[in-house]
Amino acid sequence: MAGNKKISSLQAIVLAAGTSSRFKTGRSKLVEKICGREMILYPTEILRNLDIPVLMVVGFQRDSIEETIRNNFYEGITFIHQEEQKGTGHAIQCTKDAWIADNILVMNGDMPLITADIIEKLEKKHSSTNAAISFVTAHHCDPNAMYGRVIQGNDNVQIIEAKEFDGDLSEQCCVNAGIYLIKKEFLTTYLSKLEQSSKTNEWYITDLIKMASDHKLGVSTLAVPFDKIRGVNDFKELWAAEQIKKSEIIQYWMSQGVRFSIAHNVQIDWDVTIGAGTFIGSGAQLLRGTHIGKDCYIDAFTLIRKTTIADRTTLHPHTIIDDSIIGSDVFVGPFASVHGHSQIKNGAVIGSFVEVNRSIVGVGSKAKHLTYLGDTIIGNSSNIGAGTIACNYDGAQKHTTTIHDNVFVGANNTLVAPVTLHNQSMTAAGSTITQDVPSEALGIARERQVNKEGYATKIKKEKQDAATQEEGSTRFFGATTTSKTSINEL
Amino acid sequence: MAGNKKISSLQAIVLAAGTSSRFKTGRSKLVEKICGREMILYPTEILRNLDIPVLMVVGFQRDSIEETIRNNFYEGITFIHQEEQKGTGHAIQCTKDAWIADNILVMNGDMPLITADIIEKLEKKHSSTNAAISFVTAHHCDPNAMYGRVIQGNDNVQIIEAKEFDGDLSEQCCVNAGIYLIKKEFLTTYLSKLEQSSKTNEWYITDLIKMASDHKLGVSTLAVPFDKIRGVNDFKELWAAEQIKKSEIIQYWMSQGVRFSIAHNVQIDWDVTIGAGTFIGSGAQLLRGTHIGKDCYIDAFTLIRKTTIADRTTLHPHTIIDDSIIGSDVFVGPFASVHGHSQIKNGAVIGSFVEVNRSIVGVGSKAKHLTYLGDTIIGNSSNIGAGTIACNYDGAQKHTTTIHDNVFVGANNTLVAPVTLHNQSMTAAGSTITQDVPSEALGIARERQVNKEGYATKIKKEKQDAATQEEGSTRFFGATTTSKTSINEL
Amino acid sequence: MAGNKKISSLQAIVLAAGTSSRFKTGRSKLVEKICGREMILYPTEILRNLDIPVLMVVGFQRDSIEETIRNNFYEGITFIHQEEQKGTGHAIQCTKDAWIADNILVMNGDMPLITADIIEKLEKKHSSTNAAISFVTAHHCDPNAMYGRVIQGNDNVQIIEAKEFDGDLSEQCCVNAGIYLIKKEFLTTYLSKLEQSSKTNEWYITDLIKMASDHKLGVSTLAVPFDKIRGVNDFKELWAAEQIKKSEIIQYWMSQGVRFSIAHNVQIDWDVTIGAGTFIGSGAQLLRGTHIGKDCYIDAFTLIRKTTIADRTTLHPHTIIDDSIIGSDVFVGPFASVHGHSQIKNGAVIGSFVEVNRSIVGVGSKAKHLTYLGDTIIGNSSNIGAGTIACNYDGAQKHTTTIHDNVFVGANNTLVAPVTLHNQSMTAAGSTITQDVPSEALGIARERQVNKEGYATKIKKEKQDAATQEEGSTRFFGATTTSKTSINEL
Repeated sequence: MAGNKKISSLQAIVLAAGTSSRFKTGRSKLVEKICGREMILYPTEILRNLDIPVLMVVGFQRDSIEETIRNNFYEGITFIHQEEQKGTGHAIQCTKDAWIADNILVMNGDMPLITADIIEKLEKKHSSTNAAISFVTAHHCDPNAMYGRVIQGNDNVQIIEAKEFDGDLSEQCCVNAGIYLIKKEFLTTYLSKLEQSSKTNEWYITDLIKMASDHKLGVSTLAVPFDKIRGVNDFKELWAAEQIKKSEIIQYWMSQGVRFSIAHNVQIDWDVTIGAGTFIGSGAQLLRGTHIGKDCYIDAFTLIRKTTIADRTTLHPHTIIDDSIIGSDVFVGPFASVHGHSQIKNGAVIGSFVEVNRSIVGVGSKAKHLTYLGDTIIGNSSNIGAGTIACNYDGAQKHTTTIHDNVFVGANNTLVAPVTLHNQSMTAAGSTITQDVPSEALGIARERQVNKEGYATKIKKEKQDAATQEEGSTRFFGATTTSKTSINEL
Repeated sequence: MAGNKKISSLQAIVLAAGTSSRFKTGRSKLVEKICGREMILYPTEILRNLDIPVLMVVGFQRDSIEETIRNNFYEGITFIHQEEQKGTGHAIQCTKDAWIADNILVMNGDMPLITADIIEKLEKKHSSTNAAISFVTAHHCDPNAMYGRVIQGNDNVQIIEAKEFDGDLSEQCCVNAGIYLIKKEFLTTYLSKLEQSSKTNEWYITDLIKMASDHKLGVSTLAVPFDKIRGVNDFKELWAAEQIKKSEIIQYWMSQGVRFSIAHNVQIDWDVTIGAGTFIGSGAQLLRGTHIGKDCYIDAFTLIRKTTIADRTTLHPHTIIDDSIIGSDVFVGPFASVHGHSQIKNGAVIGSFVEVNRSIVGVGSKAKHLTYLGDTIIGNSSNIGAGTIACNYDGAQKHTTTIHDNVFVGANNTLVAPVTLHNQSMTAAGSTITQDVPSEALGIARERQVNKEGYATKIKKEKQDAATQEEGSTRFFGATTTSKTSINEL
Repeated sequence: MAGNKKISSLQAIVLAAGTSSRFKTGRSKLVEKICGREMILYPTEILRNLDIPVLMVVGFQRDSIEETIRNNFYEGITFIHQEEQKGTGHAIQCTKDAWIADNILVMNGDMPLITADIIEKLEKKHSSTNAAISFVTAHHCDPNAMYGRVIQGNDNVQIIEAKEFDGDLSEQCCVNAGIYLIKKEFLTTYLSKLEQSSKTNEWYITDLIKMASDHKLGVSTLAVPFDKIRGVNDFKELWAAEQIKKSEIIQYWMSQGVRFSIAHNVQIDWDVTIGAGTFIGSGAQLLRGTHIGKDCYIDAFTLIRKTTIADRTTLHPHTIIDDSIIGSDVFVGPFASVHGHSQIKNGAVIGSFVEVNRSIVGVGSKAKHLTYLGDTIIGNSSNIGAGTIACNYDGAQKHTTTIHDNVFVGANNTLVAPVTLHNQSMTAAGSTITQDVPSEALGIARERQVNKEGYATKIKKEKQDAATQEEGSTRFFGATTTSKTSINEL
């Protein structure tokens, strides 16, 4: 969605050194995620697409910011350390030695909703008006909002920072977005003339506007919708920004043929893709790295992360798929968890209360009820009985259970890995399988049933007597008496 | 909620042939569901209640539309096939031979929010003003909305289709709803005089307005709220329409004594009924065919479809009930799935991680933990131990497990169907039950316990040694070595 | 958040006798909960904080209201019974004998959003203007809203009850909040002069305004935002009030460093506390008595009630914690249910499809898959295998399973309580453990495996033959034939 026009004559300074104090988390707000992506990456991506090299001023939590940039393979970014927080003017000052372009773009790092066209339009206006300094304004009527107020006279303009403003903030609705485009020669001359605020001891870059205006050096402004430039100073503003971003993403996918049941309920990350004809149920969480095919049915309360799903697959409600690959025409859930690089191949069925972890379930195979498949490789057309547990952990190591094609695992089996069930084999319900089962063989490992006539009634009576004797005493964590005829002794 | 006044002098043409191209699903939008009901059924239902016979013009995906109408038992609808999409005027033309009433009502099929009173008022106005043509207008200021614009002069009126409009659409807020009532004689005379648009090659029914106006034949308009007549041309508009419909439904049930926790979170279908005093938790999905009694507690993240629930029943969070019948004073969940025509009778308890499929659970019986009941019939006052699996599938067929009254099934049992546990019988924990257990008998099928002194420490050491030897090698799907003292050989 | 200034010269009458007929539940609306707290407690709490003694007029469902007040330890409240519903004037009359203060505050019981500063400001205005009667007004333009309308002339003022109002309600937007501060001497003199409405047969306290105005005794008004004084007369208004209350609570916690994913989706009760740096996922239900530490991650679709969670703990999606204590650095879920005074100690892991009930899981111990722990005490660093069931119920009593430190319970075990697994012991997968396992011993209780060559193929064929024979007959609840070679007879 970002523009691809390159603006190569510019150089950008991104202000990313702030202490994020209103977040109260001890972390930099710039690595908080909006729709699954760290906030600092949004403006960074815009600048990369425009081919504008970046000087990023960092200070508070600089390591986490730099690591985020590096992990996302952004190049052409030079980090400059601002050791003390002395205002925007001081931050610009720190970058002075690195200025090489004729025009310097300055912007804040916490602008997740900004779009490339704002930078492009600002650059056009700046060059066409030959201004010394150009900046972006927006209309926003909120006396509590800490944006600088833009005060325009007949032939003069200035920005007064909110904390320096003496008048009624609610009457000043033209606010400074914090995006400036400045001629290097103007900046070089005037930056050193900024004066420290007696109120805050900061140097403000915004004072440059008044200087340029007073000296008739040319000031241009570009008015844009507030939502495009809204900053993020606390979790309330972050929530608002994320709602807007998410709304854009959802409306885009709606236009591509995706139906959302309760759209305002859904979480969808910036890099998710969804095929036409797919239904997204209420509350679905589609998290980063998720790619869903066509005509799928993703039901309510599902959560999908870092997963690819092919076409016509159904995720029943309450299904979690994390870091896995799901084929086409698959059914998963309700109440299933698939994770750990698992693969569910075409036409397979994973049912209720089934966990699949680091496993492969082959074409058309089924595990439908109350089953744990860990480190298990299943071939095609096999059926895993309800209540089956693949015991992959021996207390020290994980081992693999291998189930070949057309195998029928009986219900409530315990498969002690490493173990292999060969093609066409079968196991009896209730078995604990500790040895390989050859092809076409039946593995059985359970005791024969005995019925003890009348014992149920006898045991019941004794247990009730025991319960009666204990009446009045506390039973919580305390009951230890058993009936006399223990079924354990039969 | 629909009016019941019959308007028998009219005949309606419903336009349902469009290609729904902006939906991008390859399906007709008219069979997309809004609150669980196919969109085409909303206007159809209004017309049926008003006793107005319908000529439905179909084309794109006509089979699915006709099937939807038939499946919902609508009669008095004649389908007329429009082979090519050549505009509304052409669609009307296709129906010509079937006109029998003196006045013809024309409307779009994608008006899910329309109410009977609009048709009634239009009819009144049309007849009282003796107009040649009457139509419905609404106020809607959106330059992107593709509604025809109504241009009214002192004594003339016309509709210009949005795609033919040359001026500024944002200044024309009086829009054409697409609902017309036309004298048959006027229609007969003037329909053939429509001219094809040079821009789109379509014939527009809207041109009839200018003709009637120019010839002073009488044109009446009826202004209604936009939300009542909003069309649905893409998934964004469908979402908006469904939100409005849902809001009406929820407000209705609120007025009937139902408490919704987070109302904007809930999905509720058009035919759902709920008794007074019932609580509906956050995110609940109450889907078509659901009927809930009085004083129930339906907690968060529940999903109910095609199910009847009696009074005072509690569904704990994360419960799914599909196509089943639930009695009164029942508790289900959390994390339970009941489906497949199952019945849970009065006072029964279905607990956590329990699936009930094609089964009956009798009065006061309990299955509280990690249990699969498939094709299982349970009598009254029986208790199913935690971890019990009814093995209903032998690889080829499903079989029935029968559990009579006052039976106590021990924990972690495997019940191999077909099998019957008779009245007052009991099974020992950990048993695989393959034969019927007689009344009052105890069924037991498990091995006696042996303790091997010191073996735990020995095995642990060996396993750790094995793990150490493998260190550095990849263990993912690859670990196959076991310790030397295998507990499998004991 | 409530003010702490004490206003000791006042006495309050709280009107709590109404029949709540529009709720249709048969219960008093005053015990319906808003953000987890009964509605009547909100104004009661404000008055308690201001040290104002209360005369509460009760009638309909008086027992449930009085019990709610008592259960929440409010003192200084005298209940006065209004036997018949004859209007606000009559309700005040019932309290007459109990007036001792010089000024009487009258307010409705259904004002969950009122704040202490409104009472404080009203008292200041009342005393500074020496008014006979002072009351609170708000601006609200809704012709359907049943608030009394405040009609102000040049030097007179009156309130006309909505049901007595003859004009256009939509033009009268100054409404009576139902909060009055009245000089006792004025009230004593004029209350008896109220006349019964001929329309409703009620006596209206609002008629006192006109009397005071007509006699020039001094009437003061205090205008406040409507949301602060909105009443709750049906479930729609209750929903609206709860949304506002919840929004205040969430915004407060956002300002304290808590991140909410989809804030409008979350339920949060009035007494919940959350540490800075904690993430609250979509749909989370944080219910009364919940206290969450710092830097926790509470993922989507979780439900927490009456539970304390320490720092850095992760609740995976679809986790329910009720009435329990969770340590720091714990992981629970996805799909887990912990309840019944359970304790999960630091660093422990509870995994998928695991239920923990009345149990203690020690430091660093793990139960990761498909496990039921009921009445189970687990020491430190023990591992519970997948599929383990603690059988705590013998049909009559609950018994305790005790697992000491560093124990390894094999998969799919059935632990028949009362039973103890001592330090460093181990059990074999698939065992039913009925006797204590000594320290360092291995408990084993399962049958040895036998492989029957070729039997799988043989059985499969027979079962398919049986299925074929039954084809065409209904199989639902009816299939009873088995194959000839039953694996049960092997």
